[in-house]
Amino acid sequence: MAAALRGAGGRFRWRIRAAAAAAAAAAVGGVRGATRRAAGRQNYDLLVIGGGSGGLACAKEAAQLGKKVAVVDYVEPSPRGTRWGLGGTCVNVGCIPKKLMHQAALLGGMVQDAPHYGWALQPVPHDWATMAEAVQNHVKSLNWGHRVQLQDRKVTYFNIKASFVDAHTVCGVSKGGKETLLSAEHIIIATGGRPRYPTHIEGALEYGITSDDLFWLKESPGKTLVVGASYVALECAGFLTGLGLDTTVMIRSIPLRGFDQQMSSLVTEYMASQGTRFLRGCTPSRVQRLPDGQLQVTWEDPSSGKEDTGTFNTVLWAIGRIPETRSLNLEKAGVHTSPTSQKILVDALETTSVPHIYAIGDVAEGRPELTPTAIMAGKLLAQRLCGQSSDVMDYENVPTTVFTPLEYGCVGLSEEEAVARHGEEHVEVYHAYYKPLEFTVAERDASQCYIKMVCLRKPPQLVLGLHFLGPNAGEVTQGFALGIKCGASYAQVMRTVGIHPTCAEEVAKLRISKRSGLDPTVTGC
Amino acid sequence: MAAALRGAGGRFRWRIRAAAAAAAAAAVGGVRGATRRAAGRQNYDLLVIGGGSGGLACAKEAAQLGKKVAVVDYVEPSPRGTRWGLGGTCVNVGCIPKKLMHQAALLGGMVQDAPHYGWALQPVPHDWATMAEAVQNHVKSLNWGHRVQLQDRKVTYFNIKASFVDAHTVCGVSKGGKETLLSAEHIIIATGGRPRYPTHIEGALEYGITSDDLFWLKESPGKTLVVGASYVALECAGFLTGLGLDTTVMIRSIPLRGFDQQMSSLVTEYMASQGTRFLRGCTPSRVQRLPDGQLQVTWEDPSSGKEDTGTFNTVLWAIGRIPETRSLNLEKAGVHTSPTSQKILVDALETTSVPHIYAIGDVAEGRPELTPTAIMAGKLLAQRLCGQSSDVMDYENVPTTVFTPLEYGCVGLSEEEAVARHGEEHVEVYHAYYKPLEFTVAERDASQCYIKMVCLRKPPQLVLGLHFLGPNAGEVTQGFALGIKCGASYAQVMRTVGIHPTCAEEVAKLRISKRSGLDPTVTGC
Repeated sequence: MAAALRGAGGRFRWRIRAAAAAAAAAAVGGVRGATRRAAGRQNYDLLVIGGGSGGLACAKEAAQLGKKVAVVDYVEPSPRGTRWGLGGTCVNVGCIPKKLMHQAALLGGMVQDAPHYGWALQPVPHDWATMAEAVQNHVKSLNWGHRVQLQDRKVTYFNIKASFVDAHTVCGVSKGGKETLLSAEHIIIATGGRPRYPTHIEGALEYGITSDDLFWLKESPGKTLVVGASYVALECAGFLTGLGLDTTVMIRSIPLRGFDQQMSSLVTEYMASQGTRFLRGCTPSRVQRLPDGQLQVTWEDPSSGKEDTGTFNTVLWAIGRIPETRSLNLEKAGVHTSPTSQKILVDALETTSVPHIYAIGDVAEGRPELTPTAIMAGKLLAQRLCGQSSDVMDYENVPTTVFTPLEYGCVGLSEEEAVARHGEEHVEVYHAYYKPLEFTVAERDASQCYIKMVCLRKPPQLVLGLHFLGPNAGEVTQGFALGIKCGASYAQVMRTVGIHPTCAEEVAKLRISKRSGLDPTVTGC
Repeated sequence: MAAALRGAGGRFRWRIRAAAAAAAAAAVGGVRGATRRAAGRQNYDLLVIGGGSGGLACAKEAAQLGKKVAVVDYVEPSPRGTRWGLGGTCVNVGCIPKKLMHQAALLGGMVQDAPHYGWALQPVPHDWATMAEAVQNHVKSLNWGHRVQLQDRKVTYFNIKASFVDAHTVCGVSKGGKETLLSAEHIIIATGGRPRYPTHIEGALEYGITSDDLFWLKESPGKTLVVGASYVALECAGFLTGLGLDTTVMIRSIPLRGFDQQMSSLVTEYMASQGTRFLRGCTPSRVQRLPDGQLQVTWEDPSSGKEDTGTFNTVLWAIGRIPETRSLNLEKAGVHTSPTSQKILVDALETTSVPHIYAIGDVAEGRPELTPTAIMAGKLLAQRLCGQSSDVMDYENVPTTVFTPLEYGCVGLSEEEAVARHGEEHVEVYHAYYKPLEFTVAERDASQCYIKMVCLRKPPQLVLGLHFLGPNAGEVTQGFALGIKCGASYAQVMRTVGIHPTCAEEVAKLRISKRSGLDPTVTGC
């Protein structure tokens, strides 16, 4: 397993072997050897394409409810040859390594705090290789854990790349080129997405990497240009800066599109104060490798109207993601995709244009690209397919957190969305700048620690959205998401007793409305 | 101000000067000099006795609503001579210095994590003096902030020790012995409490200190014996251990009485794993000073039936607190106290046995000894007295957090309370052991990271209590307290999408009931 996780170094090219299929259809990597057959197709109640968060959750739930289930998963190596194991983006090239590298960066900040608290540490430079090995080992242990879980739940696993033959049949091809035919009553597509390359930019593919590679680098990326304005871009730039690397973010338009824009500004303001450089309104035009091995990036700077250049050790593209639908042969099954996003069109029950084919997670149109929503959607879908429940996934008020150096947690509507939906005169926004207690002794600047609660103006002022910028924003936001799920009003928030001293208690102390024009800076105890 | 904060070193004895009162009644420390008179009494709409969290909140709210308000506050030095400024226990000798010293200890743990994450730090011993100076400076800045806030809100402040003359009149005596007579339409008693000394134990008062002193020590307490089982005892022992000090906790009966006892066991189990020593079922019988200056403590060990001894640099009594009612001359006003607790008896409107005299915070019988409840009670009381609102403080489902090395946050009923109130057959407890992601790379043991949700068994299974043991428990618990305030059911918790990867999301994944007997250990992603 571990060997299969590492990229082959060079570019890996997928080769579809000419048919001669049935005779060679031995499943590779399956954990239910007894069910394998050398010829003919294998039948399942439920076939899940994609071994990421959503697919695995759906498969395990259905198997536990008595269905005969198979999961097919295959990690197409990145253009730079990076590969990984079972578990999908979250485990391998997303949430998990991201949060761990974020934690490494936060520890760098803690080390700077420590002398104020009586620990007279000598500063040391960060060692990427040590961190990366520890993170990668943890990810590999999770890969293994997923394999074991599938085995425990009696889910058959195939390490094959799947494409539709017809609406009930999938052909999977192994790394070695062997084919397997699988058919199922219900098929769930959960193939997720992959980072997008700006292939129109000269040198982008040859010299750039994406988040798929960053988390598996064995050596430090060095001086890095991060191109993009997504949360992935900001999170990566944030931890690279925190680890002591010279980091620049190039943003064409606005950061964190889709998030509350006031919060977004504060996020980048804090990053800038921590040393991340921002090149706003710039677009790269080419990447070249210099004789000394460095990458020279040329970009257009609209303020001067001229081209500008810079040299970097690494160029990281974080300009968005594309759904993994292209090699699925969806047209053979009759599954429709969005012409703009290429994502699979689904209804509220996760059903595609074909009644027995479903899509969950990042590959499905209009869904938040978040692990927990994919997991919950997958579980609920399995329960419905097994007749256990008629519950439908609720995609409203999904909380999330951006793990930038100062974390940003949110749930519900942004201020812009609330105003657009309800009208400014019907929206009341309560807000506060606050100072985390731990920042005081550490002499940290808290200028961007800020909370905003967006409510309906009419009593009891239903809470529409909460936006929290500060340490441990994910931990803070989760419980409030339950409150909003339960229909919390501003009045109820105000009647909730705080836990002192925490940052979270500041939410229960939000007394200044934007409309009042009063100073929202919290003072004292 | 700053000078008044430091103890005089020796014991300070309060001397009530013989009357000759009116002529000498110049208010000391008042910030509204214009209202002072050299003789006669001063009249206020509202007089607050005690400048702690509850008293200050009540005074400021009433002043903002147009009342003429005075606050009298006087810090009786501890038996060891420790004194401090305005703000009460929380600011000076409670929440604030406690949380900062806890943070210092947590940073010690982070420093141990750091090498796993690529920061090859050389370990250093902790320097108490540096930490203490920073903490004490922060506390002094808060003292000053409270003074300024009172001035801004036009609240008159008297640094005098108050006692009742009659039901509408209070006599205050300054440090210098000058008396001031104050009368008011409404009087609020918010004098809080102070640590209790076991005066029956030989040497306890002479050689021991309490939390009143610990936070103001300029030098390390060294090897410390903490006597007590309260959260104060465990929190202090926790951070002392975390700062590298040899720390022993002596517990007569059970730790964290009143809290969920399973959680309490896990709290102390984790502390023991971090090096805190526990002497269970032991009671100290005497403290003696040895010729080398160390303190020899003798205790009775029931397991051997014999006496045992140990030597320590510091003995910290944390055996409970007593209300500050003794010098108030409550009988002159007709205010009744509980014969057992000596706390002031109050009704749901915070009214004492005298209709225009109220008591809030730790000094009031049956109230949680928590800053945020005192603040909220004080504000609501002021609003009622000013005719602004008829809202009554709701003391149900008050969340709190014990800042032990592994933090314990809770809200609502303990499992024991739920069973006692509803019967075991009507209670469903969901629980999980979990591993914080950050612990993996750091190779930390997570054996005590545990969550428990206590629900009614009948669908939709109303949540009665939540108990969270793990990092950032206070931040995690706050939002869930809002959820419970909004009547959250287990079904709603399960429909709340998690924020990945956080510890808080584990709450939304609690699927194993105790009744099922299944293994509550969370695995995988």
